[in-house]
Amino acid sequence: MIFIDVRASRSYQVHIGQGILPGLGQSARELCPKAERFVLVTDDSIAPLWGAETLDNLKDSGLTGTMYVLPHGEASKTAEQLIRLLEHMTSCRLTRSDLVVALGGGMTGDLAGFAAAVYMRGIAYIQVPTTLLAAVDSSVGGKTAVDLSAGKNLMGAFWQPSGVLCDTEVLNTLPDEIFTDGCAEVIKYAVLFDGGLFSLLEREGKAFPREQVIAQCVSFKRDVVGEDERDSGGRRGLLNLGHTLAHAIETCSDFSVSHGRAVAIGTAVICRAAAKNGLCAPEVPERVCALLEKFGLPTKTDIPLDRLMEPMLSDKKHAGSRISLVVPEKLGLCSMQSMDDQALYHFMEAGM
Amino acid sequence: MIFIDVRASRSYQVHIGQGILPGLGQSARELCPKAERFVLVTDDSIAPLWGAETLDNLKDSGLTGTMYVLPHGEASKTAEQLIRLLEHMTSCRLTRSDLVVALGGGMTGDLAGFAAAVYMRGIAYIQVPTTLLAAVDSSVGGKTAVDLSAGKNLMGAFWQPSGVLCDTEVLNTLPDEIFTDGCAEVIKYAVLFDGGLFSLLEREGKAFPREQVIAQCVSFKRDVVGEDERDSGGRRGLLNLGHTLAHAIETCSDFSVSHGRAVAIGTAVICRAAAKNGLCAPEVPERVCALLEKFGLPTKTDIPLDRLMEPMLSDKKHAGSRISLVVPEKLGLCSMQSMDDQALYHFMEAGM
Repeated sequence: MIFIDVRASRSYQVHIGQGILPGLGQSARELCPKAERFVLVTDDSIAPLWGAETLDNLKDSGLTGTMYVLPHGEASKTAEQLIRLLEHMTSCRLTRSDLVVALGGGMTGDLAGFAAAVYMRGIAYIQVPTTLLAAVDSSVGGKTAVDLSAGKNLMGAFWQPSGVLCDTEVLNTLPDEIFTDGCAEVIKYAVLFDGGLFSLLEREGKAFPREQVIAQCVSFKRDVVGEDERDSGGRRGLLNLGHTLAHAIETCSDFSVSHGRAVAIGTAVICRAAAKNGLCAPEVPERVCALLEKFGLPTKTDIPLDRLMEPMLSDKKHAGSRISLVVPEKLGLCSMQSMDDQALYHFMEAGM
Repeated sequence: MIFIDVRASRSYQVHIGQGILPGLGQSARELCPKAERFVLVTDDSIAPLWGAETLDNLKDSGLTGTMYVLPHGEASKTAEQLIRLLEHMTSCRLTRSDLVVALGGGMTGDLAGFAAAVYMRGIAYIQVPTTLLAAVDSSVGGKTAVDLSAGKNLMGAFWQPSGVLCDTEVLNTLPDEIFTDGCAEVIKYAVLFDGGLFSLLEREGKAFPREQVIAQCVSFKRDVVGEDERDSGGRRGLLNLGHTLAHAIETCSDFSVSHGRAVAIGTAVICRAAAKNGLCAPEVPERVCALLEKFGLPTKTDIPLDRLMEPMLSDKKHAGSRISLVVPEKLGLCSMQSMDDQALYHFMEAGM
């Protein structure tokens, strides 16, 4: 098992390894000693697999609580679902010293984490990521949110979990499609921070060693989050590689394109655009696209750029009249480029 | 003019004095130099009085923005109104460096402040209280929230304003009924912290010197907020004197009883209960009730205690199976008492 310390306004540990889930109740007691009640939030794809076991496990540790099941998929990450969950928490009489446990992928973690952030102005929560994507990305760093009709994550908060418990065994039981989705974020970390990890992924493909690679990704995230917890113009912004376009693709496709696939396309477009604009060598998009394809991930979208511009311009990375894009210089090294709306269009056009 | 520094996770100043509103645009530029756009949030009772002037003032300073008008009254402080406001902010393309200005009473400040807290995970806001109640209480301290069906302020965040600009001239133009409501919180501060202020209020009645008394109340609040920003069991909890019952009265009356009147009743009940339980001298409830009546405030409710218990038990002050009540020892000195549900009922019964 690997333990990673995350320093933030509230510091916590990420546990990565096999067989963590059976110890969840015990861990919850240790992480939140004042808690008497909990709400276990999950979705209807995870509930049949791990719901009952996890609920029993939490109850056996002496806590009182219920399971709250969301419809799966990004379409549930709405303000309306958030309010329904909060009303459920009030009906369970959760107090300020009680606990939310988020068992699921990014949608569940973001929504349940945000519910914890705003319920009575903030209570504790524990992230139990069940997807590779949540394990390497959304469960760490304290970004919580729901979507508004204008775009993704427009309503949210920075709210650090009390702990992140990542059971690699759980990740292995999920459909290949879900696992592939998470690989897009793993490849993103490699492009951003680590040419060596990129080569390892080229060599091993999907058989990459789970614990080690997840821990490596979490460490990268931990480092940038520690320097820039509130994502206020510092290095944390690097994690948005491919994401401005990805969020627009998700919005325009009504979330029929998954987050991982959208990030794959976003990363590929940015790499091609960067090469065409002379910011990196042609080898970068070539190797990135080849690796994405090796993992079964897409590198192009049919949605016209004109349609994608609107949601890109309401993206949070937009500050004042300029937008910040993360652009690769070489594999393992990226930088931020600020451009206006017009320049953004022409830059993106070169990569589509 | 009086300036009060508030130290918190984000520090800011409260300005109290005559003629502050005409300088709002200038102040906004100084407090939020990066902002290009704003949304001015107010309600339909304030908009006809101060809306156009304030909007022009902000625009004349070089900012671009719109006015967003809520229906007045606590009934607007809902999650649904919050989401509507957030959707409006996205349609105005507000970015993370832009600004919300809350012009109004507690409802407007709480809702607009919470919208600022969660819009793109947090943007800046300025409080411009237009009621005495907001000036001495809700505009300072960073508590923002909306109500859920189960009770008041159950969905919210701690989010500090960039500044609080309190124009005493604006307070003077409001109906006497609104002013009276705020007097309940002023009397609460006197019971909590300052026997001298209590005597001054007994002597002067509603003619008390505005700037001085408001500044005194804000200073008391500043001090307890500075020690316990997140209201986590420390001295900030003292500010809840009378509020557990007050919130229950507001909920049970569907907000037909105003916050100030509910606080007056809550404070009177607690003082009578404390005296009956031998925690303070009979003189305390006698003088408190006499002062409340002198200000035209109620000291009793027709709602039976049995009905009030339900919302009291879902109150945020409820931690685990016990609830914390603020109880007077003498005028100017109060302390916290923790009791279980049963004890709470009997304690309250003695004061009804």
